[in-house]
Amino acid sequence: MPVVVTEIARADPAVVAALGECGVATVHEAQGRRGLMQARMRPIQTDRAIAGSAVTISVPPGDNWMLHVAIEQLREGDIMVVAPTSPCDAGYFGELLATSAMARGCRALVIDGGVRDLRDLRAVGFLVWSTAVSAQGTVKASLGDVNLPVVCAGALVNPGDVIVADDDGVCVVPRAEAAGVLDRARQRLAAEADKRRRLAAGELGLDIYDMRAALAARGLRYV
Amino acid sequence: MPVVVTEIARADPAVVAALGECGVATVHEAQGRRGLMQARMRPIQTDRAIAGSAVTISVPPGDNWMLHVAIEQLREGDIMVVAPTSPCDAGYFGELLATSAMARGCRALVIDGGVRDLRDLRAVGFLVWSTAVSAQGTVKASLGDVNLPVVCAGALVNPGDVIVADDDGVCVVPRAEAAGVLDRARQRLAAEADKRRRLAAGELGLDIYDMRAALAARGLRYV
Amino acid sequence: MPVVVTEIARADPAVVAALGECGVATVHEAQGRRGLMQARMRPIQTDRAIAGSAVTISVPPGDNWMLHVAIEQLREGDIMVVAPTSPCDAGYFGELLATSAMARGCRALVIDGGVRDLRDLRAVGFLVWSTAVSAQGTVKASLGDVNLPVVCAGALVNPGDVIVADDDGVCVVPRAEAAGVLDRARQRLAAEADKRRRLAAGELGLDIYDMRAALAARGLRYV
Amino acid sequence: MPVVVTEIARADPAVVAALGECGVATVHEAQGRRGLMQARMRPIQTDRAIAGSAVTISVPPGDNWMLHVAIEQLREGDIMVVAPTSPCDAGYFGELLATSAMARGCRALVIDGGVRDLRDLRAVGFLVWSTAVSAQGTVKASLGDVNLPVVCAGALVNPGDVIVADDDGVCVVPRAEAAGVLDRARQRLAAEADKRRRLAAGELGLDIYDMRAALAARGLRYV
Amino acid sequence: MPVVVTEIARADPAVVAALGECGVATVHEAQGRRGLMQARMRPIQTDRAIAGSAVTISVPPGDNWMLHVAIEQLREGDIMVVAPTSPCDAGYFGELLATSAMARGCRALVIDGGVRDLRDLRAVGFLVWSTAVSAQGTVKASLGDVNLPVVCAGALVNPGDVIVADDDGVCVVPRAEAAGVLDRARQRLAAEADKRRRLAAGELGLDIYDMRAALAARGLRYV
Amino acid sequence: MPVVVTEIARADPAVVAALGECGVATVHEAQGRRGLMQARMRPIQTDRAIAGSAVTISVPPGDNWMLHVAIEQLREGDIMVVAPTSPCDAGYFGELLATSAMARGCRALVIDGGVRDLRDLRAVGFLVWSTAVSAQGTVKASLGDVNLPVVCAGALVNPGDVIVADDDGVCVVPRAEAAGVLDRARQRLAAEADKRRRLAAGELGLDIYDMRAALAARGLRYV
Repeated sequence: MPVVVTEIARADPAVVAALGECGVATVHEAQGRRGLMQARMRPIQTDRAIAGSAVTISVPPGDNWMLHVAIEQLREGDIMVVAPTSPCDAGYFGELLATSAMARGCRALVIDGGVRDLRDLRAVGFLVWSTAVSAQGTVKASLGDVNLPVVCAGALVNPGDVIVADDDGVCVVPRAEAAGVLDRARQRLAAEADKRRRLAAGELGLDIYDMRAALAARGLRYV
Repeated sequence: MPVVVTEIARADPAVVAALGECGVATVHEAQGRRGLMQARMRPIQTDRAIAGSAVTISVPPGDNWMLHVAIEQLREGDIMVVAPTSPCDAGYFGELLATSAMARGCRALVIDGGVRDLRDLRAVGFLVWSTAVSAQGTVKASLGDVNLPVVCAGALVNPGDVIVADDDGVCVVPRAEAAGVLDRARQRLAAEADKRRRLAAGELGLDIYDMRAALAARGLRYV
Repeated sequence: MPVVVTEIARADPAVVAALGECGVATVHEAQGRRGLMQARMRPIQTDRAIAGSAVTISVPPGDNWMLHVAIEQLREGDIMVVAPTSPCDAGYFGELLATSAMARGCRALVIDGGVRDLRDLRAVGFLVWSTAVSAQGTVKASLGDVNLPVVCAGALVNPGDVIVADDDGVCVVPRAEAAGVLDRARQRLAAEADKRRRLAAGELGLDIYDMRAALAARGLRYV
Repeated sequence: MPVVVTEIARADPAVVAALGECGVATVHEAQGRRGLMQARMRPIQTDRAIAGSAVTISVPPGDNWMLHVAIEQLREGDIMVVAPTSPCDAGYFGELLATSAMARGCRALVIDGGVRDLRDLRAVGFLVWSTAVSAQGTVKASLGDVNLPVVCAGALVNPGDVIVADDDGVCVVPRAEAAGVLDRARQRLAAEADKRRRLAAGELGLDIYDMRAALAARGLRYV
Repeated sequence: MPVVVTEIARADPAVVAALGECGVATVHEAQGRRGLMQARMRPIQTDRAIAGSAVTISVPPGDNWMLHVAIEQLREGDIMVVAPTSPCDAGYFGELLATSAMARGCRALVIDGGVRDLRDLRAVGFLVWSTAVSAQGTVKASLGDVNLPVVCAGALVNPGDVIVADDDGVCVVPRAEAAGVLDRARQRLAAEADKRRRLAAGELGLDIYDMRAALAARGLRYV
Repeated sequence: MPVVVTEIARADPAVVAALGECGVATVHEAQGRRGLMQARMRPIQTDRAIAGSAVTISVPPGDNWMLHVAIEQLREGDIMVVAPTSPCDAGYFGELLATSAMARGCRALVIDGGVRDLRDLRAVGFLVWSTAVSAQGTVKASLGDVNLPVVCAGALVNPGDVIVADDDGVCVVPRAEAAGVLDRARQRLAAEADKRRRLAAGELGLDIYDMRAALAARGLRYV
């Protein structure tokens, strides 16, 4: 039976925002290289990053009725995460739905399917990561669920998980782990800042990371 | 036997231009969700839209001789629609051919194959939707046809049909239906303007479209 | 046994630079339509072109240890060419490695695999052509080779070969042939300049290239 | 408005059967290398060939209602040709529909989409060429057309056209051209029989087709 | 930290076996069209079906060390379900591992990656569903987990879930729902038996399912 | 200029045959995991293996003229290795060419492109590994080379190299290394025979390969 879960826990907004500033690659490393969506999930815009709380939406293939249902559940800072129950790359989402989502404080969509109205979406600054672009419309005939766990582009997403997205792709951080992951992400960034300075000055990773002995032990020869 | 049809009917230029302003998603809906090319047909530029009359060109795989033949048939406002008779993603079209096409008033190409000279094409503002990018050259050894019906990226295109293209993809409007499709597209846009205003003000699609009873009847539960 | 070749011959820097100005499509034609990488090799940036000397790097799938080894071998004007020994689209390369490579005068990467930190790479102007984008990290567990021949995206690359890359893709020019290819590329560009002028003025390729008789001989009919 | 055309012309059954014996590659050549569906159209069985008259069916994505409508229109020797109006690789067709189709004399399906119940279909000898295999079910919510022209896997199919299918793929022969294509196909086969005998005896194509002078004229050198 | 869960609950073996006899399409329908793996998951053999209890295995990309660890956890009737933490289509599994798994009563593998030794695997009757075939070997350098939840080819699999696999693909039935799904699957099969008999006798689905009025109400016209 | 090299060195026929018996996976391991063609290179038949000496053929896209030229160069035990200079998946090869090749003692083809006449090829026992199946014919208009090095499906092949092919794919062994690779392959097979016996008897790889301490040292926990 189709269900809408109306109350979900979300992570601390300050933690969510800070994870967005860390970026996908750093966050992904900081949580042990888990939670990355498949590489076919790509942004429709360039050089933009965001983080938000997942409102999860399962939809029947080629049917976007549940998106209207889900929008009522959105709060400031949420990201819609849409997963069809079977692959169908129609255009489930366009500019009108974005207008409605933005009115509720949502500014991004992650969908294992298609979107349309790309120029309009870029013009209003609504961010989209999708696995397809398609003008093909959908129907409103069958139901799915809102705020139950979904698998989106190969990653398990629970409602309220933190979604981090930039040009590298999309990463899912379990809500309960968000603060810990942020700590580790910041440690990585701090450590990288020093390395970046040394690398930029011409030092080699071979020396900074002390790799030469290990390489020689593996048999690397210079000829 | 290879054929060039030199006289084709085209739609009213004002109708063509107006369809271009409506955009692919709206036009596609307005004609009953038909005529959309496959999603692998993508633009080489961003945030540009156009409409024009199709000059259809069938080419042997890896052979672009017929493009030279077709250019002579181009008129102001035409769009070249190229379909190889067998898939081959070589670079059939580049900046010199674009220069020649532009001299005859053509400003866009739709090709189920590859193009090259992307920087030059973008620099001169010649618009391209293609299924591949490739620097690989083609030969001039075998003939095809100009202005016979073709299937391009899964869509049937008759010469003189209206091609509408933007970041969402490419849609084909049969010439005889162009005016009627435009009427319906404009009606959609007018209806959407009111909905957009209400959605932006925070009203929900659930209420605007009166969906709540239907959803409940389908068994949707809020928990 | 893993090997690093420390001394490789490179082409004349002036020739390399001039090939970069000619662009991929012209260079590819000038050397007889050879050396083009597969079309899945795409740039992460738009409207940029470059040429450089190949430092070739083979890496185990999902392992980027050899990139650190290779950076020590880079000189001003080099381009890193990375080929995994088995396909694995992880993110082998990011902003820290780019910082290190740039400190040695390298400004571009060509990789049959994934990269990450796209925003940072674009921000610092490090150019990348890759077959994937992925935030997934790699390990440093196994060795490959530096400056032995590799097959990258379907093209054979010897160390010191000239890599030409732009929005059309990537082309490999054997080092010993670089000067000769440049001569032929310049001849093509000179010939094209005159044709471009005539085509822009409205002359037809059918006439400039004297094609009408050959087309008629093949049976082309105008109806 | 959705339409079922109940009376369509079909080609002479003897011609259809004979085209099936010629096979796809020969028929495709005999009609000037036209009408071949894209290579992603593959059989679910091995070493089987067939020909039949097309009953064309357009379906909404993920909706197989029209297949039930179409079965009533089938006659002995027909082949169902199914094209979704937008790509969706669900499993539109399975063993129950095959049972019904076989009861009306239809023994094959060509579908630009998915099928399921593969073991059962192979067990009863119902032949299928499809672009996907999927157990995912479809809905019965929206209508399409029966016996209007469709584009299926890149080929235009009119109702009553002859469909020829084997392990090489699927080819469409326009109904009105069937007899002429058969004549040319038989001529090819007759010509090939002699060549096959000579080639099997060790003669070379270089000599049988008298290619040596042409090759030398093109500059081929033996070293 | 890498973990092996040594005690997992499994479904009743009689229920598992019976689900295998129902087949993927029926089971998928019986549980509300959920749990189907993506269509790129294909069998290496033809006309074989199986069901078993999932032993779930996450592996680093290109690393099969955890398969050795997992084999110790296998019991009679288990199926190995392998999901790399990042996509890498190397050949993680071959005939030696199959020999070891069969010695513990396991007769099938489902892997979102590659396998090798296909002839040997088919010869000994070890069943495989995979997303790739590759002879490329893997390393034994990094750890993953055994019997934690995994996402495999787009489907969430918990240890002990029932895996049903045949030529149509692979479906996952949550362990706790197995008996209920079997009941519904058997009801479907019983209902289908009667319909099959009637369809085979020439009755139409249009009549059996009483569709004619609904089609007319939707506007279907016969012409 | 197009060239045919008429004299090439081949490996010892006994070594070639023995490599074929070892199979692709073993040979690939024995030569240090190099030389494997991309996984898109697939057989058209099942459960067959072969090895032979490469006669390398480069062809223009969609042009099979050089296949006729190459057949004259074939000797008993050769395998044709065909690489288009640009990707084009037409059907370059069919039953007549196979008849001619078999008359000269060649029994297999490896092609980075398409083949046709699959039923006939399987019927006469001519083995094919290809990256496509297509009935689309090719032209005889342009030349390539015979017995120069080619890159085929991502692997460098020199004329006379040993090609090993089975259901796992295709592997290239450099001619000069063939005997050494065979020695190592046989050592692997001998070592595997003992392991297979122990694994079949129920011993675990964990114990045979003495992995438990290393796993514990990496932190693997059993819970």
